[in-house]
Amino acid sequence: MQERTRVRLDVSYDGADFSGWAVQPERRTVAGALVQALDLVLGVGAATGLTVAGRTDAGVHATGQVCHVDLLTEVWHRHEHTLLRRLARLLPADVRIRAMTEAPDDFDARFSATFRRYEYRVTDAPWGAEPLRRHDTLAWPSRLDLAALNVAADGLVGEHDFAAYCRRKENATTLREVTRLEWRRAPDGTLVATVQADAFCQAMVRSLVGAMLAVGDGRRPADWPAGLLTRRERASEVNVAPAHGLTLVAVGYPDDPSEYARRATLTRRLRVPPQA
Amino acid sequence: MQERTRVRLDVSYDGADFSGWAVQPERRTVAGALVQALDLVLGVGAATGLTVAGRTDAGVHATGQVCHVDLLTEVWHRHEHTLLRRLARLLPADVRIRAMTEAPDDFDARFSATFRRYEYRVTDAPWGAEPLRRHDTLAWPSRLDLAALNVAADGLVGEHDFAAYCRRKENATTLREVTRLEWRRAPDGTLVATVQADAFCQAMVRSLVGAMLAVGDGRRPADWPAGLLTRRERASEVNVAPAHGLTLVAVGYPDDPSEYARRATLTRRLRVPPQA
Repeated sequence: MQERTRVRLDVSYDGADFSGWAVQPERRTVAGALVQALDLVLGVGAATGLTVAGRTDAGVHATGQVCHVDLLTEVWHRHEHTLLRRLARLLPADVRIRAMTEAPDDFDARFSATFRRYEYRVTDAPWGAEPLRRHDTLAWPSRLDLAALNVAADGLVGEHDFAAYCRRKENATTLREVTRLEWRRAPDGTLVATVQADAFCQAMVRSLVGAMLAVGDGRRPADWPAGLLTRRERASEVNVAPAHGLTLVAVGYPDDPSEYARRATLTRRLRVPPQA
Repeated sequence: MQERTRVRLDVSYDGADFSGWAVQPERRTVAGALVQALDLVLGVGAATGLTVAGRTDAGVHATGQVCHVDLLTEVWHRHEHTLLRRLARLLPADVRIRAMTEAPDDFDARFSATFRRYEYRVTDAPWGAEPLRRHDTLAWPSRLDLAALNVAADGLVGEHDFAAYCRRKENATTLREVTRLEWRRAPDGTLVATVQADAFCQAMVRSLVGAMLAVGDGRRPADWPAGLLTRRERASEVNVAPAHGLTLVAVGYPDDPSEYARRATLTRRLRVPPQA
């Protein structure tokens, strides 16, 4: 058995033309594009075990995605310093590997993560979305109330059973801890939600955003999103906000690498693996 | 003759799929898209005399373009409050009218302008351009020296004959005053040039940027771009930087509307009309 080195990849992508992260036959996916480029540069099989922090849905973007692969140590050391540029030439322009760094064997992009942070961009300008940002900004047809959005957001922070906001999977817990949820107006007027949690179940961020938008435009009272947390199953009244407004901006890990393994064990024990 | 009201339009667009600003037969242009939408909403002929501050080339973007039209006064007053939303529904997503405001008759989007400000975005990251910003950011294949870029920039500020940087047109002066030219690194590492002048001749901003980039990556000395200002014709050694990195971000007008007419008279006398 040849020696392998675990390597952390920091990845960005424009989700518009990808069928999400995970490899699917006959579909263009982010993982598929990465594996293909790694195989071309390093040889098939030199990189194995691609594992990602946030399995983003079709159409969702990332500027701060993190994943890991195990590279044949000899191949890694031979190519280490030229790899980024060579991959940049081979990868399609809508996905970029921003950094590749050697990591301890017990670094796990998925299970060692302490938080995932997303941003959702939505504009309520009567004229719509700024053309150059229309690919990552939802155009909302009516005025949104920033204060109401933040009252709704406050009610969702904390550890809750987010079943109302999850596509339930058998045996999977929907208990999550939202550690940050707030809306701000960017200088250009765009409303930006920052949503951070230990982990998210599928479509959870977009469901939370959809519920808050119903408050922001006055269709629902500000305590409605938090009220849904008593539900034990998906709330069909919640609209899932469109994918293109959503970007995974950061994934957090313990500052101390010796915590990687402990965190991973804890995550595995606490829940059936987080989805996004 | 029916009474008309002059209306200022603030316009944004993603230049990628437009053959520039000016209407051309069989081509998709920004002016063409605007006229078509105005005709559809207000009736053919209700809006006349579309005049723009900066006639951007094919592929160049705008977040702060300004133009004016003359609208039948009766039509303008009838639709004033609903016009933005109605136009937003009809316009393609890559062009937006951000504001329509009544202006004095002697406001001229082109001749009353006191300055045009552009930004040019270029990244020298080895991994290329951030996917979500790849449409308005040039990926440069080698490291750029910010200090050298700014030394080159300093030499170009002021009133000069920019013939070396212009596609000369018969009888047109190439005298321009560059009032601001500076490079900065944005928080994400992208290099952004701000270029402001009273007016620009065709492809001038991209020629200036092309010359400075040759300094930034070490192929030319820092005083080379300024040295070219002694030329009386276009310098063929200057590469014109690609259009997609360039965005018109602002157009300035006199603070005091009573200055609009005076400024326009002055501009017309000083030079054969500025091109961009």
